[in-house]
Amino acid sequence: MSEKIPYKIYLSESEMPKQWYNLRADMVNKPAPLLNPGTHQPMTAADLAPVFCDDLIKQELDNTTAYFDIPEEILSFYKMYRPSPLVRAYFLEKMLQTPAKIYYKFEGNNTSGSHKLNSAIAQAYYAKKQGLKGVTTETGAGQWGTALSMACSYFDLDCKVYMVKISYEQKPFRREVMRTYGASVVPSPSIETEVGKKILEQHPGTTGSLGCAISEAVEKAVTSEGYRYVLGSVLNQVLLHQSVIGLETKAALDKYGVKADIVIGCAGGGSNLGGLIAPFMGEKIKGEADYRIIAVEPASCPSFTRGKYAYDFCDTGMVCPLAKMYTLGSGFIPASDHAGGLRYHGMSPVLSQLYDDGLMEAVSVKQTDVFEAAEKFARIEGILPAPESAHAIKVAIDKALECKETGEEKTIVFGLTGTGYFDMMAYEKFHDGKMQNYIPTDEEIAENLKQLPKV
Amino acid sequence: MSEKIPYKIYLSESEMPKQWYNLRADMVNKPAPLLNPGTHQPMTAADLAPVFCDDLIKQELDNTTAYFDIPEEILSFYKMYRPSPLVRAYFLEKMLQTPAKIYYKFEGNNTSGSHKLNSAIAQAYYAKKQGLKGVTTETGAGQWGTALSMACSYFDLDCKVYMVKISYEQKPFRREVMRTYGASVVPSPSIETEVGKKILEQHPGTTGSLGCAISEAVEKAVTSEGYRYVLGSVLNQVLLHQSVIGLETKAALDKYGVKADIVIGCAGGGSNLGGLIAPFMGEKIKGEADYRIIAVEPASCPSFTRGKYAYDFCDTGMVCPLAKMYTLGSGFIPASDHAGGLRYHGMSPVLSQLYDDGLMEAVSVKQTDVFEAAEKFARIEGILPAPESAHAIKVAIDKALECKETGEEKTIVFGLTGTGYFDMMAYEKFHDGKMQNYIPTDEEIAENLKQLPKV
Repeated sequence: MSEKIPYKIYLSESEMPKQWYNLRADMVNKPAPLLNPGTHQPMTAADLAPVFCDDLIKQELDNTTAYFDIPEEILSFYKMYRPSPLVRAYFLEKMLQTPAKIYYKFEGNNTSGSHKLNSAIAQAYYAKKQGLKGVTTETGAGQWGTALSMACSYFDLDCKVYMVKISYEQKPFRREVMRTYGASVVPSPSIETEVGKKILEQHPGTTGSLGCAISEAVEKAVTSEGYRYVLGSVLNQVLLHQSVIGLETKAALDKYGVKADIVIGCAGGGSNLGGLIAPFMGEKIKGEADYRIIAVEPASCPSFTRGKYAYDFCDTGMVCPLAKMYTLGSGFIPASDHAGGLRYHGMSPVLSQLYDDGLMEAVSVKQTDVFEAAEKFARIEGILPAPESAHAIKVAIDKALECKETGEEKTIVFGLTGTGYFDMMAYEKFHDGKMQNYIPTDEEIAENLKQLPKV
Repeated sequence: MSEKIPYKIYLSESEMPKQWYNLRADMVNKPAPLLNPGTHQPMTAADLAPVFCDDLIKQELDNTTAYFDIPEEILSFYKMYRPSPLVRAYFLEKMLQTPAKIYYKFEGNNTSGSHKLNSAIAQAYYAKKQGLKGVTTETGAGQWGTALSMACSYFDLDCKVYMVKISYEQKPFRREVMRTYGASVVPSPSIETEVGKKILEQHPGTTGSLGCAISEAVEKAVTSEGYRYVLGSVLNQVLLHQSVIGLETKAALDKYGVKADIVIGCAGGGSNLGGLIAPFMGEKIKGEADYRIIAVEPASCPSFTRGKYAYDFCDTGMVCPLAKMYTLGSGFIPASDHAGGLRYHGMSPVLSQLYDDGLMEAVSVKQTDVFEAAEKFARIEGILPAPESAHAIKVAIDKALECKETGEEKTIVFGLTGTGYFDMMAYEKFHDGKMQNYIPTDEEIAENLKQLPKV
């Protein structure tokens, strides 16, 4: 291509994807099914119906349909903040003096501040279509809760968010964004649910945990008429919706005749990584093209690199279905010092299977290295990244510097999932030299893995 | 035009403006010159040289050159976050059921969160070109300070920001963004300057004020080798740089054959409004097209609607040049309850002259009405606006509803200057029903205007 590649590639509205891509349809080894925690039999649609919306259950269980039409209403909402730009990191390349060509797909230009909105709007749409009154969910730092609030406001659905109490109190700003969108935000544990009351009785001064918030949200959904529970990561349906990230990225590259060599994404539950890599992985599986695909996880929560591929509970309360995934054990909680998301003990079953099949790599990175990369990136590319996203930045820079050593002109694409405007307390710690690098010991991980269910 | 107008119009990089437009060249009545506060004579380039960069002084004093080339280095930086989208507010139109066509120019998609970056990068560039070591400035809530930090980081200039002490303590997040970009942020008043020390002696417990921070920044600049002072609004040079907003807006409308009828912008010191309206006002003055142009200001700081057009001090310390402008008196400070920017006692001399010539209108709006419009807009258009920007939203909605009454299909364009992510404390007040509407009395305004200098 002789045409100069612009700093930012925006697809036109007519070039935006009209369908989501279901990578599972092309996987040779399908992801293992969710199991009923009581019977250890695969969960059926009927088993899931009290918890999830009907259409979402169909998407969750479908391992064969390669493409799902994106409903018109969702396409219309997508146009509010999509297409997101694929940015050519000219400034970063110049600073690194690398022959590598670096691109990043930036998902932060919306009020939720991240890619989470792509699935939130889909889940809200199907809830509305089913005639539900509302949905429940949990949130930690609040990225997912914010996205869901925006989506529910758009479809006039009630939105109940159980927010981990310590975040509710210490991070009031995202809570206020959620309130702006009409969500009711409840500090968890609360006295609104049986599980919440029980935990409060046992631990009166508790500041809450994500596991507890999940349990409350699920209980509220299954005990309230016209409500279902929704989740922002891990699930197959979420990766399906997030494929819009990868499809746009690939379309933008194809438009300029660019072939990616390395695709990099941060990984917590896997929603962003699964979405970003979907069309690349699909081609790789079918032998149409080869890509090096790298998952980046925090050294403080290293499910891919130090976890075990096994059936495990999805929540600490052990009430949700069992999923086969790379896991650190459902009791594992990363150090409170760890900033941002990517705190989940497990990993999307789809990505777990792909990793187990050797189709992708994984690396873990230390927190201070991540923030160093984040600050470097903010200064040179002008975007202050979310700590989550900065994991991918760190490894993209590493790979670009390797190219500098070898002289290879590789094309590196990474996912910049969001902005860090609500994470400034972590940046402050970093600036003040007070940030720690917590890395779990082998014994700690082994101890937690003892709790795996016998399946 | 039969072509469907997209939700977001992005110019291509080649369509981006290559020159800034200097509206003063086409004004029949030129803005009154700055006066030396001692002699009351017009400030010369030599008078201004200790305070401002040489090239910026030229731009400040030039009332005849219609276009200035944007230097390549700045064009390149602009491509990092520009062109900004001109958004067709389809969702808002539908909600209001108005025949009006509403567009907004969104300047919030960059880490500084507002349009301020457009001038910050220009001022940093000229400082670097002059071989300076660094620049000083003041900031209140931190929007301008953040933008300047980003710009200085890019050109490797030292950046010293005097931040009003109460904001420094109560709004630590923007401070951390500035630190991420390597700026040194000092709570004002400080013991680093004579004026700071004096104020601290007189008022030991003071939480600071913008006027005091300006005085410290100016003192630091004129007493430090290789430093100059920079300012984010009011000045002619700032309006010149901000013309990129209006030029992009007009180019995007022209591309789709759309003619604006009403152009609306919020007005504090006038940087956004002056930039947005520049090319429209130019055509209006030359009789090439007619536009209704509306400035929106807070009822708590109503310089256009209730101030006096007269020479006044630009700062509360009364050390800066005198400017002829609509003013509430340099001692006027809006109630502490007032959220966001738009707190300046005066108004850009360019805009003041245009308003005095009857070429534009002004309205003032109450704070609670502004936040009501902000929340409505956030829910339907997906962008959580800065309180400043929401002033323009409020009046745009009012005008669209008037069109609904009359059935007129007017085209309304307004400036959405930024995002409100760092203003959630104000939103919280609004949600909790604790937000006040402070409106100064006639007596209060008259009292402050008594302090006007005799010129």
